[in-house]
Amino acid sequence: MRFNGILAPVVTPFRQDLSLDADRLVTQCRWLLASEVGLAVFGTNSEGNSLAVEEKVELLDRLTEAGVDAGRMMPGTGCCALTDTVRLTRHATALGCGGVLMLPPFYYKNVHDDGIFRSYAEVIERVGSDALRIYLYHIPPISGVGLSVDLVGRLVEAYPANIAGIKDSSGDWGNTRALLDRGWDDFAVFAGSEAFLLRMLRAGGAGVISATANINPAAMQRLYREWRSPKAEALQQALNSVRDTLQRYPMIAALKAVIGGFREDPEWERVRPPLLPLPREQKAQLLAGLQEIGFEL
Amino acid sequence: MRFNGILAPVVTPFRQDLSLDADRLVTQCRWLLASEVGLAVFGTNSEGNSLAVEEKVELLDRLTEAGVDAGRMMPGTGCCALTDTVRLTRHATALGCGGVLMLPPFYYKNVHDDGIFRSYAEVIERVGSDALRIYLYHIPPISGVGLSVDLVGRLVEAYPANIAGIKDSSGDWGNTRALLDRGWDDFAVFAGSEAFLLRMLRAGGAGVISATANINPAAMQRLYREWRSPKAEALQQALNSVRDTLQRYPMIAALKAVIGGFREDPEWERVRPPLLPLPREQKAQLLAGLQEIGFEL
Repeated sequence: MRFNGILAPVVTPFRQDLSLDADRLVTQCRWLLASEVGLAVFGTNSEGNSLAVEEKVELLDRLTEAGVDAGRMMPGTGCCALTDTVRLTRHATALGCGGVLMLPPFYYKNVHDDGIFRSYAEVIERVGSDALRIYLYHIPPISGVGLSVDLVGRLVEAYPANIAGIKDSSGDWGNTRALLDRGWDDFAVFAGSEAFLLRMLRAGGAGVISATANINPAAMQRLYREWRSPKAEALQQALNSVRDTLQRYPMIAALKAVIGGFREDPEWERVRPPLLPLPREQKAQLLAGLQEIGFEL
Repeated sequence: MRFNGILAPVVTPFRQDLSLDADRLVTQCRWLLASEVGLAVFGTNSEGNSLAVEEKVELLDRLTEAGVDAGRMMPGTGCCALTDTVRLTRHATALGCGGVLMLPPFYYKNVHDDGIFRSYAEVIERVGSDALRIYLYHIPPISGVGLSVDLVGRLVEAYPANIAGIKDSSGDWGNTRALLDRGWDDFAVFAGSEAFLLRMLRAGGAGVISATANINPAAMQRLYREWRSPKAEALQQALNSVRDTLQRYPMIAALKAVIGGFREDPEWERVRPPLLPLPREQKAQLLAGLQEIGFEL
């Protein structure tokens, strides 16, 4: 069983002192699951890299204890340090997570493909579980360390049971196309934005893992179900107009402003440094812009 | 008391299973201190970002238990997650480290200066110690997140007792010059390469924190002591020829190959992924190149 469809890199709520707000996260995860959207917790838009490994371990525990289905979770587990990645991946796998979304180690730049291969290989060997399903995470604009199509191929060939797919957040359709064209058995290719959703599905892709799924899950899920219908183009256009409105602002702060604003729960608006919350005027503009296009939460 | 002179981002030795080799690290630190070179453990060239926070805590404990002077240590403590940076900085400060070298959070790119300011401010407030001395770490080619001269000025102004200096690894002399020209009281500016050592000292800089101090500490310390002597230019040239030979190879693997090779201790040659050890032929070339220019270890 591999993931497909829509997943949200679930935004992470913080308390006043910037500690983790597990209760609000549980509520948000349940709400997303109600729209059949999967849970890519600890992704880039989750501020996943602003959380310590032990904080992520604790949140996974809290989510599963609250009855959130681990099989629908694809936590981000790729850290800079091999030992951290192994610790978190092992825990996620033991909890029964359906997969993990794994960045390559991202501090050192211009490293050789052989070194990145060795990073993933060491994690797979050390975790040593048939249940481990890795979705590679290619997001060079942020991580600064990309995964070439050739490298992906080497990993699929060496570990066909463990390398389950990839999230391609390059924003480069040519790269996504090249991954799809390789046609590896049962290999799930996700785009990093729903702007590509219809194009992905028509090309045989698995779906998207996209920031805006945090606030627009049902509409995205609907296009995923109905992509062959005559309405598909219109559904895609409607998704695009929400995304275009969001994208005028820093994405993570904007998502939290939308959740906080539409739900009248300002607790949601906190971000951890180095990010900043949306200034008051921008928040008002964003909410007004969404209301203008008929957006509801 | 602020740091000055030469510091080495001490390379980190690993055992066969890539776990930490604290004994070899202690030996290396003692050897560097014998040349009066300070210990910037967990720097970029230490593979500091390939170590988990708890591994770094353990190594600091092992070093101080072995009698290595914490006052001569400037561990790298800047992580992606605020909570990690606070944990490690607090521990280093409690152990009496003379300072810490602090990267900004480096996963999220194109963040606002206000967000980076807030990151450092939160760490300072949370650690809450008059003994905390932060050396800012500006290394945009690797971290992807730089510290503008204006931002440095805002931090110095807000926290004059805690912001003790900066390591400028931009490789851009104009930026180093701009930092020196601001003339903040008792603010120590270090360059990231001994190629700038003589120029730094003539311009009023504090010194350098440089990879090659791992293998050439005495010669670097000598230029630091004798920079006003007529021999200074020749001493700088000699440093440059060692560095130029090293720089033909990936730096961290090359440093470890030199230590392992000259000391006949191949255990030293291991690196953690995503880095790779130097291939056999390159190692032979490197050692031969150093011998040609009369280098000894």
